[in-house]
Amino acid sequence: MTLAAVIDRVAAAAAPDLTFSVVLWDGTRRRYGPGGADAVVVHLRDRAACEAMLADPGLRFPAAYVDGALEVEGDLGRLMELLLRVPDAAVRAGLAARLALGLTRWRLRNTTRQARRNIASHYDAGNEFFRLWLDETMTYSCAYFGAPDEPLDAAQRAKLAHLCQKLRLEPGQTLLDVGCGWGGLAMHAAATHGVRVLGITLSEAQARYARAAVAARGLDGLVEIRVADYRDLDPGLRVDRVVSVGMFEHVGRARMRDYFAVTARLLTDGGVGVLHSIGRVAPAPTDPWISTHVFPGAYFPALGELADGLGRQGLHVTDVEALRRHYALTLDRWGDNLEEAGDAVRSRHGERFLRWWRFYLRSSAAAFRVGNLTVWQVQFTKGVSDAIPLTRDYLYPAAARVG
Amino acid sequence: MTLAAVIDRVAAAAAPDLTFSVVLWDGTRRRYGPGGADAVVVHLRDRAACEAMLADPGLRFPAAYVDGALEVEGDLGRLMELLLRVPDAAVRAGLAARLALGLTRWRLRNTTRQARRNIASHYDAGNEFFRLWLDETMTYSCAYFGAPDEPLDAAQRAKLAHLCQKLRLEPGQTLLDVGCGWGGLAMHAAATHGVRVLGITLSEAQARYARAAVAARGLDGLVEIRVADYRDLDPGLRVDRVVSVGMFEHVGRARMRDYFAVTARLLTDGGVGVLHSIGRVAPAPTDPWISTHVFPGAYFPALGELADGLGRQGLHVTDVEALRRHYALTLDRWGDNLEEAGDAVRSRHGERFLRWWRFYLRSSAAAFRVGNLTVWQVQFTKGVSDAIPLTRDYLYPAAARVG
Repeated sequence: MTLAAVIDRVAAAAAPDLTFSVVLWDGTRRRYGPGGADAVVVHLRDRAACEAMLADPGLRFPAAYVDGALEVEGDLGRLMELLLRVPDAAVRAGLAARLALGLTRWRLRNTTRQARRNIASHYDAGNEFFRLWLDETMTYSCAYFGAPDEPLDAAQRAKLAHLCQKLRLEPGQTLLDVGCGWGGLAMHAAATHGVRVLGITLSEAQARYARAAVAARGLDGLVEIRVADYRDLDPGLRVDRVVSVGMFEHVGRARMRDYFAVTARLLTDGGVGVLHSIGRVAPAPTDPWISTHVFPGAYFPALGELADGLGRQGLHVTDVEALRRHYALTLDRWGDNLEEAGDAVRSRHGERFLRWWRFYLRSSAAAFRVGNLTVWQVQFTKGVSDAIPLTRDYLYPAAARVG
Repeated sequence: MTLAAVIDRVAAAAAPDLTFSVVLWDGTRRRYGPGGADAVVVHLRDRAACEAMLADPGLRFPAAYVDGALEVEGDLGRLMELLLRVPDAAVRAGLAARLALGLTRWRLRNTTRQARRNIASHYDAGNEFFRLWLDETMTYSCAYFGAPDEPLDAAQRAKLAHLCQKLRLEPGQTLLDVGCGWGGLAMHAAATHGVRVLGITLSEAQARYARAAVAARGLDGLVEIRVADYRDLDPGLRVDRVVSVGMFEHVGRARMRDYFAVTARLLTDGGVGVLHSIGRVAPAPTDPWISTHVFPGAYFPALGELADGLGRQGLHVTDVEALRRHYALTLDRWGDNLEEAGDAVRSRHGERFLRWWRFYLRSSAAAFRVGNLTVWQVQFTKGVSDAIPLTRDYLYPAAARVG
């Protein structure tokens, strides 16, 4: 089967109802769909890169985009959605399997050195880079939208408020924030609910930023930010509340049990926790590009794995909310903000860096949109607890967000 | 260790802070706790029954109560809570283990003939018996209380409304109710949301009752009640919505996968389902008295098992609500109603029957109160679906239940 024939097959399976074109390295244009204007034009500028994509699509498709061997006129996120939705039947058909399969069922490859390079570039970009496209609260996790067109700032603030409501915080309580990032949640909890917060992060840069923000808001007396691993906390530490947002993804499958055991030990009897993590509907290995080039060792848990792990430690799940669509919307905003800051990013970090981030944000949005990924927000108590009201009205103060 | 010494040890472990007495078969009274008036008095009227309890507590403790060899002055439910809360450390200590262990970690025993007798008496009691203590909607599952003192009728109606909101019903849609009981939910959904409902049950008596109720409410055109197993439905049947309340408990551990596969087949793409079932925080075998004398083959699933089973069939969990305290409250009301109807029950069915039902309702309330059991109400969609709004405000119409 020629390379062009393989491309034909994948293209036809990906978007039977969409009119789009693929322009090959030799300038020939292949057109698909019912006709009319092209919704998307894909330029495949390098035959060798195409061959590489077929040999190892999970890693080479992103690389081709980042390198510019693959260019997209139109909506990159929408294209990724179409590719992720290629039906299994089409995937199994012939050589096409090798491209589409790589996009949905990933294989791992040992490219540690490359991973380190990319991860370094991810974090070395620094607080200034993240400030270019995150919201004012510097929240690098899924927001909580009252409506799809709500501003990102408002949706991130609503998320912080929603989490604090789920935690049933009361003045004077202690709260541990595992993976506190730039401190947005810790500060909100302390300022709004009068709790004492210990926020821990593994990043010195985040801790410095968070400490400065805490001091600037006069919250030094209530919020402590520490560079620490959750496993290295004082074994005698007990807290009334525990929260973790966008950190569990990094725990990894093999360490999930440890994480739940530590959480159970840290919480006082009847205490309340909220675990907020990217996850999946059913267990599956992590996308190889994500697990080697974005977040090494990342694992996105199925709800069954979270519920099982919590339950076996005597942590009673009381509420689960799936925020899948919220992360797609969040990533859309981040992607848009990145483009708005495109000139600044390009001048400081270069074109390749910009393309890497664009691909990461747009393809992640697509993964949430088609349901390959979701977000689990899980509330639990240590043993039985009457800290959680009978009904969930307390999360929905009348008309506050409805009106 | 003498029998009296064993009783001392269990009593001390069960309620260190409570003053209560145990009166033995020979009239001797043993007193426990800090002093003051007895909160509970337990009469152990038969030495042989006590020995039997120690040999096989899971089955013989309930039997002793039903037979009157064990009598309780005071709150039976509270006593059961105390026994269920006996700490593991005390349980492991010596012979006492055999009583307390039997109340928390159950063993199965093959007493099929006895089971059949008891089950027959459970169901042969008939619709008239259930009408004596269920609410007007004849709902034999956990209600949904806005407040602990809400009337049972109101809480059952709120449950029906809550389930229908979670199902996102729209006029003209089809709804399958798997295990429809006496038809309360089917009728509510049809009358309030204009959907066409197929309710299935395995009980001819329930089906007759439900059909009459459907006809009396003029809902014949919208609601069909059928005596059928969920596995025997037309393989070509497709429905927009599926609901199951208090039926999954009877599916059994070995058949859970079949149940999820059938559910996934029946639902249209993007369709919505709600599964409402008694469950547990972590997997555990079913109480032997329940599984032999109340509901043979019953299994109460952990949330991890439900989430895993649904996810593997492409059913995306979107919301989980734990209604543990609601079932304790529901069982309290049923227990109170049973006592109010005590004379009628006794005259028609005898004292032993009344004591059996009392023990079943009061000990079940205790099991929910201490957290041995809970209720999982799980909303899911087939594949990704925008049928579920971004936020759960839709379940909490402003001030409707709050005010």
